[in-house]
Amino acid sequence: MSEPVIVPTPTTVTGELPDGLLAAFAGYEEALATNDLAALDAFFAPGEHTLRGDATGLLVGHDAIRGFRGARNGTVARGIRALHVRVIDPGHALIVSVNAPDAGGAGLVTQLWALSGTGAWQVEVAQVAAPPAAIYPTVWRLVGTPLVAATPPGAVGGPLAGETIAVKDLFDITGFPVGAGNPTYLRESVPATATAPAVTALLSAGASVRGIAQTDEFAYSIAGDNEHYGTPPNVRVPGGLPGGSSSGPAAAVALGQAGIGLATDTAGSIRVPASYQGLWGLRSTHGAVDRAGLLPLAPSFDTVGWLTRGPAVLRAAAAASLEPARQIDVPARYAVSGALVFAADDDVQTAFVAGLDRLTDAGLLPAPDLVDVGDLTEALRIFRIVQAAEAWRSNADWVTAHPGALGGAVASRFEIASRSDPAEEAEARTALAEIRARLDAVLDGRILLLPSASSTAPSRRADPATIDRTRTNTLTLTSLAGIGGYPALSVPLLDVAGAPVGLCLVGPRHTDLALIDHATAFMNYPPGS
Amino acid sequence: MSEPVIVPTPTTVTGELPDGLLAAFAGYEEALATNDLAALDAFFAPGEHTLRGDATGLLVGHDAIRGFRGARNGTVARGIRALHVRVIDPGHALIVSVNAPDAGGAGLVTQLWALSGTGAWQVEVAQVAAPPAAIYPTVWRLVGTPLVAATPPGAVGGPLAGETIAVKDLFDITGFPVGAGNPTYLRESVPATATAPAVTALLSAGASVRGIAQTDEFAYSIAGDNEHYGTPPNVRVPGGLPGGSSSGPAAAVALGQAGIGLATDTAGSIRVPASYQGLWGLRSTHGAVDRAGLLPLAPSFDTVGWLTRGPAVLRAAAAASLEPARQIDVPARYAVSGALVFAADDDVQTAFVAGLDRLTDAGLLPAPDLVDVGDLTEALRIFRIVQAAEAWRSNADWVTAHPGALGGAVASRFEIASRSDPAEEAEARTALAEIRARLDAVLDGRILLLPSASSTAPSRRADPATIDRTRTNTLTLTSLAGIGGYPALSVPLLDVAGAPVGLCLVGPRHTDLALIDHATAFMNYPPGS
Repeated sequence: MSEPVIVPTPTTVTGELPDGLLAAFAGYEEALATNDLAALDAFFAPGEHTLRGDATGLLVGHDAIRGFRGARNGTVARGIRALHVRVIDPGHALIVSVNAPDAGGAGLVTQLWALSGTGAWQVEVAQVAAPPAAIYPTVWRLVGTPLVAATPPGAVGGPLAGETIAVKDLFDITGFPVGAGNPTYLRESVPATATAPAVTALLSAGASVRGIAQTDEFAYSIAGDNEHYGTPPNVRVPGGLPGGSSSGPAAAVALGQAGIGLATDTAGSIRVPASYQGLWGLRSTHGAVDRAGLLPLAPSFDTVGWLTRGPAVLRAAAAASLEPARQIDVPARYAVSGALVFAADDDVQTAFVAGLDRLTDAGLLPAPDLVDVGDLTEALRIFRIVQAAEAWRSNADWVTAHPGALGGAVASRFEIASRSDPAEEAEARTALAEIRARLDAVLDGRILLLPSASSTAPSRRADPATIDRTRTNTLTLTSLAGIGGYPALSVPLLDVAGAPVGLCLVGPRHTDLALIDHATAFMNYPPGS
Repeated sequence: MSEPVIVPTPTTVTGELPDGLLAAFAGYEEALATNDLAALDAFFAPGEHTLRGDATGLLVGHDAIRGFRGARNGTVARGIRALHVRVIDPGHALIVSVNAPDAGGAGLVTQLWALSGTGAWQVEVAQVAAPPAAIYPTVWRLVGTPLVAATPPGAVGGPLAGETIAVKDLFDITGFPVGAGNPTYLRESVPATATAPAVTALLSAGASVRGIAQTDEFAYSIAGDNEHYGTPPNVRVPGGLPGGSSSGPAAAVALGQAGIGLATDTAGSIRVPASYQGLWGLRSTHGAVDRAGLLPLAPSFDTVGWLTRGPAVLRAAAAASLEPARQIDVPARYAVSGALVFAADDDVQTAFVAGLDRLTDAGLLPAPDLVDVGDLTEALRIFRIVQAAEAWRSNADWVTAHPGALGGAVASRFEIASRSDPAEEAEARTALAEIRARLDAVLDGRILLLPSASSTAPSRRADPATIDRTRTNTLTLTSLAGIGGYPALSVPLLDVAGAPVGLCLVGPRHTDLALIDHATAFMNYPPGS
């Protein structure tokens, strides 16, 4: 920087202003304006204790901060509107600045500056607030206050009164088109003339629709990285993928922007984001919730379900949506499959075993029986053949008519699906029925316990090979409920170094509410145990 | 607090942890949880240099912070997820904490703690980030990505391509009901079957609708304090009223959540929020923009207009909306009325005179002529009689059918309006035509310069009498453009101790674009002059 630095005039100064501090502040603002990454890195103190936080999370250590800067495209130009300098000692000062971004609003930055051994002023800690956005487009497509009001009389005394819903962009809502995570699809979509029964059930119980939340395209992914609308944040794992395809409803609930995520689960689309983000998530029994007004992916496996922050709201949402007469009880008899546990990453295996031990030690979980669920690789292969054939049948016309409209990963999945062979599909359906019958026999009315996903949330910057391997491993775990048409509940009970993993309960068909009740009791273990 | 304080375990500590620091941190969290105002006040260092900032602005001084706390209803319960302590010296430490509110999301707090003379740890500076909301209900009723896309081909090369609009909740948009700032009205409102031409004009120029923004009820206020949806923030004056009735569109633009506020101005509803929030705002010539699909207040004075952060977008929006053939030029001849200036607060008078001096000194403004615009009190009285009669005519059926549905201030205004007397109205109309003719003659083709409002943004906690006096004084200034059907442009050129005030240009009818061009040239004065 050969330009003379314009040193700002502070609004207030407490203490005696040290030499060079304001010039460093001005230099940092200039480096921001030009997105001079080397200068920005140099203005931040080296080492693992340097901190930078904003609304999306706290970055710990110089490396993490550098990585974040490298991944963004600079920042909005801004002027300084107010500057408060508090000198702590000759080597430390706190600077609080109010900025005025060219794009409107006001920003706020608090920085702890310290004099380094070489006499340079550097930031050791910074908290940054940018002006809030009108809407988070990675999470939502539409938001309202509310978008759709609760249906009286449920609005007043209903079991979900006051709750808000993030509706996955696959469900019909009167007056709004369905977008299915794809902007081309959305443009051609016409407003629905009726609201899907799965939405109506919640509205009648007193919840209102907060908005329509993003999904991976046509729900054909479990990553949560929509190429058109971006990747929603993961509140629990800064820099981690949110999981999908119900990425928007899950993020909305994790962020506290809605209380209920109304979503779908074909091969894990509720359980995976629940696991990655530390939420409760229920995939309901196949066929137990009316799928009218829902864009299908693979109807043999498609289910409706819900994501919440806690069990009470989940139970109320499920109870409002499921036919009470069809729900059955299930005794507290549990099963575990070694093969399913081994399909997960080592640290998830460890967390799973530790989690079960903690529950059994607390007397909350009877010792599970070990069961043999058969060849998981073969089961997943069969599942995928049928899923692909149905996914293609559901979407072939549109995908064929809109070349280039899909994001890369989803496009290649549909490309593979387009080669589905009817004979192979028929064979797979026969095999599927056999596997399902065998699972019914093996589980024998017991609740299967397994990790909800094979890993914690992968990094957003993970390479495609890692993402793909994670996908296959996780589908090995999640596809069993799809094959069996079973309800599957993900409970945020496991933890790998601070990152959540779900404990998954797969029960007999129509034990949805009973699963929630059993898992609710798991939460009663003594603190610290 | 007789309960033993649970001292949190820090995630990281840099330096040697001083006695009592973590207990103080825990005590502060406990005081927050119980909203113990006395304890919270004691935990913050006394004096005028203590700082507390969040997304809505920076509070300076212990008194301001105490006032803020007293006005809110406590905060959401939260646990601490991560805690980083950086000890600066034995008397100072910075604590950065990540919290997990019970309502979801993650919060971040940076605090500078200092040991007081009496040996107590106190917060000297704090920056607080709460989880972002899905939508800001004081600003918006509905938001989308976008809510309505631009109309091709304007979407690509149009003069407003890429711009976003906050539409005041009075304009029809196909498929959406109009809410008019009142939830009862909204519930009975049916989705519009056509989009208002004022919206269509912007869509065709390439802008998209970001959302539907809040308004004072039926636009019958200039305060911006909707009792049902709350008061939008004022980015430029933390704790100040936003101004109304176009409070939502103005706040959306000031916050950077939209680029164009599409609004209405009957008696100042664009100029007042523009003045309070430092925006550009144009009330267009009466009748120059089609008002089809717009809920009327007082049709003799109702106009369409726009709020923006700068002149270029304002000009493009106005040019896209006004009929070019009707627009005329106006020479740079200016007029000032002493009576109009004296109607403003003393500090606004001073700022107005200083602003004109600066422009004339820079050679940007020819010396204005002094003119006598007549009896302002009488003009306002006449204006109000006609406005009230028309406001009642527009809304009588609905207001009568919905007793208790209106907020207090607006209800009492309609109550007065309901007593409009036809004979008095007829008389007032005659007087109005006379005043209008006299104004035309007095101004004689010149541009009248005046303050856009009588004051800077009043405090949100100002007493009703102050609000009412401000209202009357400001209407004295703003009603002249209403009476004359003139275009009036508010330009953010004046300043009272950091709070913005608009310089208002009132031109002959159909000089809308010319006014923007003249004012744009005002911005060319040398920095610091």
